[in-house]
Parts: sequence; structure tokens; C-alpha cells
Amino acid sequence: MTSFNISELNSLEKRHRITLVNSVAGFKSANLIGTRSAAGVENLAVFSSVIHLGSDPPLIGFITRPSKVARHTYRNIIETGVFTVNHITSALRESAHQTSARYDSEISEFEACNIPQEYLNDFAAPFVRESPVRLACTLEDDIHIPANDTRMIVGRIQHIHINDGLVKADGYLDLVEAGVVAISSLDGYHAVAEPVRYAYAKPDKPVRPLSDD
Amino acid sequence: MTSFNISELNSLEKRHRITLVNSVAGFKSANLIGTRSAAGVENLAVFSSVIHLGSDPPLIGFITRPSKVARHTYRNIIETGVFTVNHITSALRESAHQTSARYDSEISEFEACNIPQEYLNDFAAPFVRESPVRLACTLEDDIHIPANDTRMIVGRIQHIHINDGLVKADGYLDLVEAGVVAISSLDGYHAVAEPVRYAYAKPDKPVRPLSDD
Repeated sequence: MTSFNISELNSLEKRHRITLVNSVAGFKSANLIGTRSAAGVENLAVFSSVIHLGSDPPLIGFITRPSKVARHTYRNIIETGVFTVNHITSALRESAHQTSARYDSEISEFEACNIPQEYLNDFAAPFVRESPVRLACTLEDDIHIPANDTRMIVGRIQHIHINDGLVKADGYLDLVEAGVVAISSLDGYHAVAEPVRYAYAKPDKPVRPLSDD
Repeated sequence: MTSFNISELNSLEKRHRITLVNSVAGFKSANLIGTRSAAGVENLAVFSSVIHLGSDPPLIGFITRPSKVARHTYRNIIETGVFTVNHITSALRESAHQTSARYDSEISEFEACNIPQEYLNDFAAPFVRESPVRLACTLEDDIHIPANDTRMIVGRIQHIHINDGLVKADGYLDLVEAGVVAISSLDGYHAVAEPVRYAYAKPDKPVRPLSDD
């Protein structure tokens, strides 16, 4: 077993430590967040911190660090109150990673990274046209995390757009059929295998795989 | 394209809506969180909301809803200030899902679900013995999310324990070699394929896969 206590972690070379610590929570979601500034400049950025917060109301959250460097996504959301979440597929992953480059604020990553955008239902933020699962979100809250001066943006889902055939009879969204990837550490993009799904667990009997999946 | 606006989402049958909304953020991390009450009763529970918050200091976060039902994990962390995060592998996934059953607070899920525990370095919370990646965390913050009355527990990583051979030369942790799974929706546990890793992105040149991986 390889172990690192806090002082051993702190003594690692900086990039090495960042790569390791970014790995240790496990696999992460892979999304492109689309925004548009009040002045009309579009922005698109890869995020691996989007999480489910609740179903009623439907809420998601993600982490950003606006104070450290210019964060156009954060500024645009605060200015306009809207953003889109677009799942990254194997076909999109290379151009999605390219959005992490530090483009100037007047540059649209949709154009610079050659990712076609789309507007749907008069929603003010742009979507990624080729993404199979897309959420239109409004800003619900902006929560400060004092421990490292980051923020959690809480978004309320207003509209869900999913390619046909991906939602199963029980509401399960087939992310594998959609070609959606998972992220590891800072730069690993993974295809994902078919799941084993389990029935609702009860204390008095062993859990079983769902039979109708 | 299949679309749901907010009123269409609200009109779905409840379980169907929960299954769908739990899917739409993408793939999630798969962890067992280990705690022990002040009275000495161990608890182990599956979580799919653990995320990376920062590298310096090393911080992770996860979401819990203590007000809705009895949440032994939350209560134990507030009582004792410590918890462990243990990655779920394909070998562990069935017993990990079993921990989501509503056991009474005096029952240890380690025993009820037949998951051997282990104590390391005198840390007061129990680890999952068979997990290849394990974190010892102290409670750093407990942040209320008013939008749905949930809480984000912020944990400071004090110790990382990883099976030998999984950390690569640049600090990248090989979760695929470790057999770690990803979660979709409420009940899907996925093996994950080898990644494509990309070099650090720069505005003036196309991103390239890392050659030495």
C-alpha cells in the first residue's frame, strides 16, 4: 500500500500533487457549460464538477474559483442568470478539452474550438449542438466555500433536451448509449461500459440486479 | 429530440422523475463513506456525490440531506469530526449498493452487508479493507444549501492510502487499473474503459493526446 500523509502530500512537486489530488475522489462528470455575456460574447468551458443536488426542485451544482483567475463562465452567469450544461461524448472530448485553454474574454470557444452552437426555445444561453443531453439552467444560488475560496453555483433545471431513444421506460437515461464520457484527474476522458443496475435495497434481503434492464 | 420543460418534469410519476433527474448531470463517483458514532457504532453508506474541491489544501465535498430522514453518516461526522472515503470497485458494488437499505442506527453496515473494515494509523473512522483507494478526512465545513435544504460536507484529506502500482510517474491515479466504477442515476454501476489523456491545452495550438501514457 502506498500512503501519503498531509506533509508528504505537501512535499510533492506541485503539478504532481495537483494531478494526484484531482484523482482521489473518483470518476467525474464531463460537461461543457455554455454562457453568453451581457455584451453578447459566447463562452464555453469544460467542467468536471457538475453534480446532482436534488430532484424536486431539479437542481444541479458545480464548483468554480472566480477569484484566482478570470472566470468568464462565472461572470456571465452572475450577469445573465442563465447557463447550459452539455454532456461530452467521445466524439466531442478533444475539442471539449481544448476549451480549457486560456482564451481572452472576447473570444468564443464555440468558434475557437470549432464546436457548433445552437439556441433552443428562446433560452438566452447557447447549447452545444452535437451534445446528446443538454440542460437549460437558471442561477438559483451562488454559495461561497470559505475553506479554499471557491464557489458552488446552484442551477435550477428549466428544460432538459435528450436525443431520442435514450430515456428508458422507468426514466433511466442511458448515458452509455449516448456515448457520454467520464473524467479522471485533470485530463483523462473515459468511455464507460454498460451498467449493472440493482433493485432498491432493503435491510432484510440481499440486493439483486434489475432483471428487466 | 425528447424535451421536458419544468411542468412536464413535474407531471412525471415521482419515481420516474427521480430516476431521470438523477441521470442528467452525467457519471458520478462511487464511494463508501465510513464513520463511527460517539457511542462506537460503525456506519457505512454508499454516496455518488463526492467531488474534488481543491488541491491546496486537499479538499473534497459531498451532499447529504440530514433533515429528511435519519442520516447516520451526517450525525456521526458532526459528532466525531472524521470520516473515510473508500472507492467502490466492481467486486464491491453489490454489497456497496446494499448499504443504501435503511438499517437501524445501531446496526453496522460493515457487518450487515458483509464488508470487512479496517483501522489505519489510529484514525478514528473505519476504512473498507478491500477498497483500493481510501481517504482519511476531517470535517472542514458543513454548508447549508437553502434551495433544497441539503448540506455539503467539506472534508480535508489528511491521509491517502492507495494500492501499490496505481499512482503513475506524473501523479495520475489509474482508477481503471484499480477496478473503480462510476455510477449513473440511482442504481447503475459501470466499469470504465482506459482513458485518452490530453496535454495541457493552449489557445494557439490544437490539443494532443499525451504520448507517454
